[in-house]
Amino acid sequence: MSDQVPEIRGERALIQRLRNRIGDSGTPSVPFGDDMASLPHVDGNLLWTTDMLMDGTDFDSRVHGWDAIGRKCLAVNLSDCAAMAVQPVACLAAVALSDQLSMNDAETLLTAIDEFGRTFDCPLVGGDTNSWSYPTVVSITVAATVPSGSKPVRRDAARPNDTIWVTGPLGGSILGRHMTFTPRVQLARQIASTLNPHAMMDISDGLALDLSRILDASGCGAILNAADLEAAIHADARQLEARDAISARDHALHDGEDFELIVILPPDAPSDHFRDPGLIPIGTIEATSGLWIADTASARTPIPVRGWEHFR
Amino acid sequence: MSDQVPEIRGERALIQRLRNRIGDSGTPSVPFGDDMASLPHVDGNLLWTTDMLMDGTDFDSRVHGWDAIGRKCLAVNLSDCAAMAVQPVACLAAVALSDQLSMNDAETLLTAIDEFGRTFDCPLVGGDTNSWSYPTVVSITVAATVPSGSKPVRRDAARPNDTIWVTGPLGGSILGRHMTFTPRVQLARQIASTLNPHAMMDISDGLALDLSRILDASGCGAILNAADLEAAIHADARQLEARDAISARDHALHDGEDFELIVILPPDAPSDHFRDPGLIPIGTIEATSGLWIADTASARTPIPVRGWEHFR
Repeated sequence: MSDQVPEIRGERALIQRLRNRIGDSGTPSVPFGDDMASLPHVDGNLLWTTDMLMDGTDFDSRVHGWDAIGRKCLAVNLSDCAAMAVQPVACLAAVALSDQLSMNDAETLLTAIDEFGRTFDCPLVGGDTNSWSYPTVVSITVAATVPSGSKPVRRDAARPNDTIWVTGPLGGSILGRHMTFTPRVQLARQIASTLNPHAMMDISDGLALDLSRILDASGCGAILNAADLEAAIHADARQLEARDAISARDHALHDGEDFELIVILPPDAPSDHFRDPGLIPIGTIEATSGLWIADTASARTPIPVRGWEHFR
Repeated sequence: MSDQVPEIRGERALIQRLRNRIGDSGTPSVPFGDDMASLPHVDGNLLWTTDMLMDGTDFDSRVHGWDAIGRKCLAVNLSDCAAMAVQPVACLAAVALSDQLSMNDAETLLTAIDEFGRTFDCPLVGGDTNSWSYPTVVSITVAATVPSGSKPVRRDAARPNDTIWVTGPLGGSILGRHMTFTPRVQLARQIASTLNPHAMMDISDGLALDLSRILDASGCGAILNAADLEAAIHADARQLEARDAISARDHALHDGEDFELIVILPPDAPSDHFRDPGLIPIGTIEATSGLWIADTASARTPIPVRGWEHFR
């Protein structure tokens, strides 16, 4: 009731606040805040994934609100679920909070994770709360179930003559989309159930680098069609080109954090059918290794495989 | 072959090294390094837990080797599995590596997690590798299965007249045990299958604070017996007392990271039976809230509930 009243801080008070906000819906057999959390009991196999995001690298708390930060920290994990075409079921969040954060900031971050998760049927069911004197770190783990009758879509089964598609235009996500993108969970399941994809992956480190990972895993190469790729360049990439003199195409090839999907489809399906869910064709899988771009039918240029890579 | 040869760095090279070391044994339906990892298919319910550890807080890379650090980062998660008396099955590791680390350091850290995990049938099956210019952060998630015919042991079912036990002597773990403790996974399952525990919890933040969490969750209080507690004081606590003039009993009550279990047992079982697996009795659950210590039959003193708490 007064500015003089000190804020009640501490891990215990924060967990109590979260318990009140989030409740027990995700954890039928173990209450929120126990040593472990329940994974929802599902038929079939479970997959899981973890992603760690750091202030100053993956988000900037001087610019972004803690609700937008929480949303992104979960969204990158949900994007991995999309890449495998599986259905997320629940998440855990471990955090090292900068001691500069207020209790309200911390609560905003963690409830944003839960609220965004619930829109994907993926509530926050537990975690670990720490603090320290360095920038905030958020590590989320998501479990997902493989829909019955289907398999996870791996990255190692692209085959020569398969076609390469992306789920949306690429490049320039740093202008804002890297914080606000919608993970392609629903679209991925639609693709997996109707189009028999041979491989999929989400674009977190740039089209060229992530596509090269599919090629390495599958033991093949690819050639992109320059005219097709032109149609897959985001307006943000063109806006960046005007600023930094790096071509919009290079932004589309090498910028990270598009979080669209690369989809490898068999050669024999009708392409109109593929375009329906918004897929954009960009090239073809080849037997020989390497990643190339064809500006005309006769001239091909190697695409340098670079993009965001940690620990260099 | 020469000091001049630059080390091949980067996330991709590190993951390749790990793939070679760790292999695919934990991930039958998805290869190591795909967007998600398989959770081993098990009968019955799964639980999961996550813990984040930070250099300078939970370990000190100036003092501890990266193998010892990896071991501890997993061990604290396995201790949560012990607290619920469940069987760990696999783990994920997300890391933000200080850019001061060498590739060999990074590989040592991650393979230590896998190697220690395998001794608990809990291999490393995936993760996320990042780097930055701040201290190293390691976040591990462990999934565990509830043995068939049993339930996870929660913390909210202690009842008046239950007896309170610990699985080993407490206090002074900072002298070294906090890095080298053995998670009580096997002992916990033995206790759960033979002694009908009403509640269990591992001691990460100190006996007084962690016991108070059982009491809060169960809606009751407890009185510790001073003579019994004396037998539960670790030699390390006495060694610290000689240095810092804080009593060994206070070290046993309030030091963090013992990673022994608090075990709440029903009042009617033969106590010799309990002592068999090394359990040490320390007190009794009461109906009225509060945590007390009885130095004699007539005099009781409240125990301050404090211990390690983040985000204060």
